[in-house]
Amino acid sequence: MPVPPSDAGHPAPPSEAPTSGGAPPMKVILAGDLDAGEWAAWHAALAAALPEAQWLDAEAARRDPTAVQVAVVANPPPGSLAGLHHLKLIQSLWAGVDRLLADPTVPAEVPLARMVDPAMSAAMAETALWAVLALHRGFFAYQQRQREGLWRQHRQRRAAEVPVLVLGRGEMGGRVAAALRTQGYPVTTWGRGGPPLQAQLAAHEIVVNLLPLTPQTRGLLDARFLAAMPPSAALVNLGRGAHVVDADLLAALDSGHLRHAVLDVFHAEPLPAAHRFWRHPRVTMLPHAAALTDHASAAQVVAANLRALREGAVPAHLVDRARGY
Amino acid sequence: MPVPPSDAGHPAPPSEAPTSGGAPPMKVILAGDLDAGEWAAWHAALAAALPEAQWLDAEAARRDPTAVQVAVVANPPPGSLAGLHHLKLIQSLWAGVDRLLADPTVPAEVPLARMVDPAMSAAMAETALWAVLALHRGFFAYQQRQREGLWRQHRQRRAAEVPVLVLGRGEMGGRVAAALRTQGYPVTTWGRGGPPLQAQLAAHEIVVNLLPLTPQTRGLLDARFLAAMPPSAALVNLGRGAHVVDADLLAALDSGHLRHAVLDVFHAEPLPAAHRFWRHPRVTMLPHAAALTDHASAAQVVAANLRALREGAVPAHLVDRARGY
Repeated sequence: MPVPPSDAGHPAPPSEAPTSGGAPPMKVILAGDLDAGEWAAWHAALAAALPEAQWLDAEAARRDPTAVQVAVVANPPPGSLAGLHHLKLIQSLWAGVDRLLADPTVPAEVPLARMVDPAMSAAMAETALWAVLALHRGFFAYQQRQREGLWRQHRQRRAAEVPVLVLGRGEMGGRVAAALRTQGYPVTTWGRGGPPLQAQLAAHEIVVNLLPLTPQTRGLLDARFLAAMPPSAALVNLGRGAHVVDADLLAALDSGHLRHAVLDVFHAEPLPAAHRFWRHPRVTMLPHAAALTDHASAAQVVAANLRALREGAVPAHLVDRARGY
Repeated sequence: MPVPPSDAGHPAPPSEAPTSGGAPPMKVILAGDLDAGEWAAWHAALAAALPEAQWLDAEAARRDPTAVQVAVVANPPPGSLAGLHHLKLIQSLWAGVDRLLADPTVPAEVPLARMVDPAMSAAMAETALWAVLALHRGFFAYQQRQREGLWRQHRQRRAAEVPVLVLGRGEMGGRVAAALRTQGYPVTTWGRGGPPLQAQLAAHEIVVNLLPLTPQTRGLLDARFLAAMPPSAALVNLGRGAHVVDADLLAALDSGHLRHAVLDVFHAEPLPAAHRFWRHPRVTMLPHAAALTDHASAAQVVAANLRALREGAVPAHLVDRARGY
């Protein structure tokens, strides 16, 4: 069944909600692979943002699957949406929809909306700015020297001397580029349909990856990509782990061709304990925390999209399945 | 003598320079405790920025000390300016003049200008922004978890939820505050003549110190100051080491009252190897590198001030000796 059974410890949100304007309430389920705390947080935020919807619990959805009009999803286990034949919208709570698109049980004919949340984009811009400042000014190197007990200044350059290439031209890429430009970095953005990437790489000392994961971008950050970056360049991967060929990245770090990598995402998460990234002196890792979803803000985005649907408008941020995001 | 002897390996800058407008060239010395590389870099930058001045070498200054009109100084050894009875201006290459003011051999009646360099202020704002982003988003904690092999996300807050108190309302304090506000942090600035500091501290999770070192600010960051900060607060010291009472800071870090400290400056520099700051898990250290002087930019500032002097205008950023900066 699409939603966890209500006897599994997940509190059901209010299922009888006030209707607006006399129309019957929109019937919505929340489906996902979430722990109990996350489940409760999402339910609370969504019910507060969209009190006029009727949030069906597991039993109600099982009893009448064709009543469900919208599925709000967060990593739903495969098969979660089976039997929901009258779905009008699948609204993702995550920005990345690569897992949803890879799941053949997610109905391909139902419009699918990505999460594009300004609070999440702001968090992503913070992380990217922190990483670029640290790489530009050598703060990771200073932290290493502290551990070694070495007092030694290195050369300081101006932000204007450190060109940054941002891969991804969506909401997040735009927000990250704007934050970097405000700090004086010369920023180039690159996305689908842009000029050949190889030619761009040589001119940029820092690459920040924010691409969506698609068949075209999977494995993009490989030996050829890394070799095209200038010596002592740095990589910030805030996209997906599968954008990177790990062995190629490790080789580029080991050789020193790449000075440093800041990695938020990995092929397997949590990153297995034996993976060399954990202990590599040129790797700074985050536990997929570059931009955590802000429940309250994301719930407002969901509410706006569901109200648009109800009013007959086209929901925002619909995924182009052919394009892959 | 004020300047290193020319036989000590320091190349003398061009001593015969073109004059402008027929007036005799202004006679200038550079005095400082600089290694040969720094000496050469400053000479090159200053001669390029101010080709109309006559840069006297050690021997020329010794022969005719009363000819010297301006001393450009960078940590000059005590006595460096003795005998220069016709000095019209002492121009510091450093922003902090606490050492100059503590030197009784620096003539008190000669106007003294601090370095206020936009490139240095920009570098300071970068460092402050990096430190505040890292403290706000818990990136130092994530780096610690990486070393421990722990994959665990922590709660993410918005910048708007993290008030920052910037101590210092000068050029640098203003630039730092502006950079932080651009990223969404609620920023309060505090300086001489402001409301009582103790009352401000409780409302701010992060304090960034950019105060000048004066008799009034020495030891300001003591047990009483730190106790007035809220639990789990953080300190970023980009001012002077002597602002901090080290034992009090260590006690606040050991007890956990203070979550983290980012320290760029220390009572003794380089920080002695035995000092606990080197190995404290809650301390991130920089080797007095938050804002290195940019030779080219600083030389332009010097040139502008010397030209102002020559034209009879009041040089910029004159130190108020009673105030101490």
